Amino acid sequence: MTDAIYLEDLAVGDTFTSAEHCLDAEQIIRFAREYDPQPFHLDENLAKDTFFEGLAASGWQTSAITMKLLVGSLPLARGVIGANAEVTWPQPTRPGDRLRVQSTIVSITPSRTRRDRAMVVVECITSNQRGEALQRMTSKVLCFAREA
Amino acid sequence: MTDAIYLEDLAVGDTFTSAEHCLDAEQIIRFAREYDPQPFHLDENLAKDTFFEGLAASGWQTSAITMKLLVGSLPLARGVIGANAEVTWPQPTRPGDRLRVQSTIVSITPSRTRRDRAMVVVECITSNQRGEALQRMTSKVLCFAREA
Repeated sequence: MTDAIYLEDLAVGDTFTSAEHCLDAEQIIRFAREYDPQPFHLDENLAKDTFFEGLAASGWQTSAITMKLLVGSLPLARGVIGANAEVTWPQPTRPGDRLRVQSTIVSITPSRTRRDRAMVVVECITSNQRGEALQRMTSKVLCFAREA
Repeated sequence: MTDAIYLEDLAVGDTFTSAEHCLDAEQIIRFAREYDPQPFHLDENLAKDTFFEGLAASGWQTSAITMKLLVGSLPLARGVIGANAEVTWPQPTRPGDRLRVQSTIVSITPSRTRRDRAMVVVECITSNQRGEALQRMTSKVLCFAREA
């Protein structure tokens, strides 16, 4: 486990690289059954004749796995608490993809009313084992000072 | 089941209301264990002393449930295929919340290169049983013409 990260520990331009998540068809189908029940996420055969031309993970599963990898790689004190997210999915996430997240601190804006915290913009790029970007996300997260 | 919706069936300002999803603590904790393992999503007692002051769902679970409700209420022909999403979470989703999604067609932009499709901007507001907005999302989705 990495020590918790406080506001004082962060600087614009800092980067954090996550562990890897190996995604397989079973995980894709299980997520899709519960949250995104569409043929291209549910069944390899049905997926062939769709826009995705084969089984693809729900974009929301890529987001959820990104969150898991982010929680492990950017261990903010008091938690990774996002206020928003702008997400794009440049290409589908496929069975067999090994996902990794690289996060970069884009800006740090101290709260005007509460001296113990700041809003930190983080850009997270989720890539597969070939370095292809599967998701680009920019999110505002809350960050607390050590003396809070 | 509703009939599939084609580009010709959509107009700016059209709205679609989803069914309801009842969320409980067990679902919140199960999602968190797999995708967002942080104390405020994992354990009612640990959550008390956190920013959320009680168990709250991962924002990504709210997004995932929104997707499930959207797939059921905006049955686009060939599927609901999003290119991006801008998401905010104005307040936490809690155990006992009953989620519903209202979707509004914001714009329809025909493809310049492919006459069989358009990019449709949809705004989806996910609310609970008290009408409190839990998530606001704007997303570009692909929409196909009937004659494609």
